[in-house]
Amino acid sequence: MKIPRNPETVHAPLAGYSHQIEISGTERQLVISGQIGMRPDGSVPDDPIEQLGVALDNVERNLEAAEMELGDLVRLTTYLVGEWDANARRQLMASRLGAHHPCMTLLFVAALAAPNLRVELDAWASRAV
Amino acid sequence: MKIPRNPETVHAPLAGYSHQIEISGTERQLVISGQIGMRPDGSVPDDPIEQLGVALDNVERNLEAAEMELGDLVRLTTYLVGEWDANARRQLMASRLGAHHPCMTLLFVAALAAPNLRVELDAWASRAV
Amino acid sequence: MKIPRNPETVHAPLAGYSHQIEISGTERQLVISGQIGMRPDGSVPDDPIEQLGVALDNVERNLEAAEMELGDLVRLTTYLVGEWDANARRQLMASRLGAHHPCMTLLFVAALAAPNLRVELDAWASRAV
Repeated sequence: MKIPRNPETVHAPLAGYSHQIEISGTERQLVISGQIGMRPDGSVPDDPIEQLGVALDNVERNLEAAEMELGDLVRLTTYLVGEWDANARRQLMASRLGAHHPCMTLLFVAALAAPNLRVELDAWASRAV
Repeated sequence: MKIPRNPETVHAPLAGYSHQIEISGTERQLVISGQIGMRPDGSVPDDPIEQLGVALDNVERNLEAAEMELGDLVRLTTYLVGEWDANARRQLMASRLGAHHPCMTLLFVAALAAPNLRVELDAWASRAV
Repeated sequence: MKIPRNPETVHAPLAGYSHQIEISGTERQLVISGQIGMRPDGSVPDDPIEQLGVALDNVERNLEAAEMELGDLVRLTTYLVGEWDANARRQLMASRLGAHHPCMTLLFVAALAAPNLRVELDAWASRAV
């Protein structure tokens, strides 16, 4: 069972995330490798927002392979490189996650595994058995 | 049940953390979004050490909202930006955590979600049901 | 129980990792602090590949102290600083992990806790009771 909470004692979330999610009971947990904006054919779009869209596709396909869905995400960490259009990034993320608000962290890092990569997503999901 | 260990085969911890914590049995797990130095009114102090204090407040308030406490932290990852007074940082962290030594990782990153943010804390807690 | 999967709907893994590992059933989970290339006597080799080797030693010794092994790793996050020989890094990692492919994320960060540190490893392991 997953219980999201936004404590009144902490500032309101700054975007579509939850401050906390409590997991209890008998769950299947899904650990997922950092997902990048690489399509099944190995191509990577140049545009960072497109890369984010493909990376979110990859997170979703990983969830599907485990018979889970975006609503089972409990944590999503976003690693970014270089300049980003923050509004476009937030809109894309919000449109993809919809009403589900996982816990989130967002970091700008020095680089990812290859110079063309502008975003990587670490996802963690949990679903009741 | 949480069992901290510092193996004799690994160098002694360099600060007030444990090398490992084993979790077993029936636990409630708490996933928490990256906590920043923002007060409930939305203000963020300029001073990095003050920001860290507020971020630790926010971690603690999240734990309280889940009926947990700092002693239930199993992992604390600290993301820092820019120059820091390492001694002041360690003293503050040690004074807040007291005798509890969660697992820790500390990284300097390129930037956080907004330019005025100097620190973010990723916390993970677990408590026996 | 740990089930690794590489969904056909996602590009093939780019190295010796799994896209996802599902954890279910009654498990002992091991949270481990970020492990660096520091030997038991406190010395740290200058060479980054040697540091990575010592950091992997430290992960392995932590696993042993919990009566686990490298095959119980479900996630390994590698934080790197500065220039690295990517081929040498991948070969070392592959030779140490062997046939076991945990989930992985690799990030270049601005710095670690001390200026001489070139690599840190965040590991998470799980083993059936």
